[in-house]
Amino acid sequence: MSDPRYDVIAIGNAIVDVVASCSDELIEELGMAKGGMTLIDADQARELYAAMGPAREISGGSAANTLAGLSALGVQCAFVGQVADDQLGQVFAHDIRAVGIDFDTPSRKGEPATARCLIFVTPDGQRTMNTFLGASQFLPASALDEEAVGGASIVYLEGYLWDPEEPRKAMRRAIESARAAGRKVAFTLSDAFVISRYGDDFRGLIADGLIDILFANEGEMAALTQTDDFEAGLAALAASVPVVVITRSEQGAVAVAHGTRASVAAEPVEHVVDTTGAGDLFAAGFLAGYVKGQPLEISLRMGAIAAAEIISHYGARPEADLAALMAAKLG
Amino acid sequence: MSDPRYDVIAIGNAIVDVVASCSDELIEELGMAKGGMTLIDADQARELYAAMGPAREISGGSAANTLAGLSALGVQCAFVGQVADDQLGQVFAHDIRAVGIDFDTPSRKGEPATARCLIFVTPDGQRTMNTFLGASQFLPASALDEEAVGGASIVYLEGYLWDPEEPRKAMRRAIESARAAGRKVAFTLSDAFVISRYGDDFRGLIADGLIDILFANEGEMAALTQTDDFEAGLAALAASVPVVVITRSEQGAVAVAHGTRASVAAEPVEHVVDTTGAGDLFAAGFLAGYVKGQPLEISLRMGAIAAAEIISHYGARPEADLAALMAAKLG
Repeated sequence: MSDPRYDVIAIGNAIVDVVASCSDELIEELGMAKGGMTLIDADQARELYAAMGPAREISGGSAANTLAGLSALGVQCAFVGQVADDQLGQVFAHDIRAVGIDFDTPSRKGEPATARCLIFVTPDGQRTMNTFLGASQFLPASALDEEAVGGASIVYLEGYLWDPEEPRKAMRRAIESARAAGRKVAFTLSDAFVISRYGDDFRGLIADGLIDILFANEGEMAALTQTDDFEAGLAALAASVPVVVITRSEQGAVAVAHGTRASVAAEPVEHVVDTTGAGDLFAAGFLAGYVKGQPLEISLRMGAIAAAEIISHYGARPEADLAALMAAKLG
Repeated sequence: MSDPRYDVIAIGNAIVDVVASCSDELIEELGMAKGGMTLIDADQARELYAAMGPAREISGGSAANTLAGLSALGVQCAFVGQVADDQLGQVFAHDIRAVGIDFDTPSRKGEPATARCLIFVTPDGQRTMNTFLGASQFLPASALDEEAVGGASIVYLEGYLWDPEEPRKAMRRAIESARAAGRKVAFTLSDAFVISRYGDDFRGLIADGLIDILFANEGEMAALTQTDDFEAGLAALAASVPVVVITRSEQGAVAVAHGTRASVAAEPVEHVVDTTGAGDLFAAGFLAGYVKGQPLEISLRMGAIAAAEIISHYGARPEADLAALMAAKLG
């Protein structure tokens, strides 16, 4: 088999974020679970949007954010995700291509519209997300054929996309194709609520040895391993997954790769503006180091630096020159 | 006649800004006039967008930006402008209503799409704007009937809107209605290029005594008065316009109101990120002071403070709580 064309191909929700600052009172008033992600339908999206302050639209989507970071760090990437044939779909496609990522999934005609995530950012920088999946949930399995998946060294999958049925099938097929082609499968758990719905699926994938690289935060790890004991949870995952990366917010992150353990402190941030995308960009920095064969400590540090950049401004796509930032910080 | 319902009604382009940072080299490569505003058609918009980096979409439009600032400062406002029945039209309508501004112009079905302004921001914070007027140029004169215009103390008009034929008629009608109803007419010159095209119209309006409050920057004043002599230009305008406000970027601003002259220094800004909207927000701060009967010096200071806030972040709508900012700065 020839060398893969891409370092990483990611399959994720193709979403435009609608980001507004808000008070803690509004979060309470609207009955939202602060810090979480809730799926909403078109009517709820209209209602919440009406209650939302003036916003800015910035392309998002967990896996797409990770790719934007990877691409900025010189990693060759392709994205697979479903937008509708509408203005926000054009915005998403423009923004992902503008950072050098190949994106060829054809847009989908008619309703529903391109996915949107209404993100309420409180003064503490925490984000509360309400996702209208729209066209994103109609990603067909055919978008992930053997050729696409075999064309990349790593297939990166977003747990959020396990919610809708069509993309779940597409992801299962992608995992099979990746294994058959001898590619690595990376998986990000995305959200504790997704795990509460699909934990058995995820635990099955891990037990079957289908996940090579796993990203999670502490809460997601606890939900997945069904223990609040950090060390026990980490040990359980590391027993079945070759590379495990657990982020711990202000406490930095820990990774275990092929039996070796390393950790990193959180990178200092002058003012946390919006934590949206912190996990996505940590994964980007880490994977960039991993792809380039960096030591585990350096990969973790790259994750921490990328995460620190993203939380210092609104939106989950990098604004600074990440490569220059890494060069400056890592020397 | 009953008291007007609004302090200010503004007629302007209903535009969503598409804001991306870029290098000076890209400005040159694309043959754009740095710092200026160029009208582009749909094909040019597609081409330029393809050359643009990842962007964020933030509601804009000169007069609409001014209203957003006024509303944040407790001034009762209404906006008149034309969006299409599309996603960016919904974004524009949402954002202007979300800050408490009444906006009732019905959206327009079919092509063209809602107006967009592709804004390239160079590392020095300067913005270079490329405007696709889209639906905005189809604002019908009927949207500005006597009732609407008579319902506000001040009718605020945006020079940019003089370019397309339909809105130009609408604005002429609005000026007539305002005069008939005994309302004040405020006008912002917007851009030196607009003046090169329509200077005779603007000079005519001023000579006929139809403008009560005029906003311009130095360059626009020079183009309008056809002199590079600042004092001569200011004197010429002040002879025909009761209130003249001239902004001078880093040199602050000067106003002459009914024979009284005052000036203000620019408010210090730690880091200029994006100068888009500086003039719009200066007008907002000044008009807010004017509406509330503040002394000329204070109104100018309010303009300077609002302008400083807007250039410290991307986008031309306030992010900080402007009222709190004024309270803190003015004591």
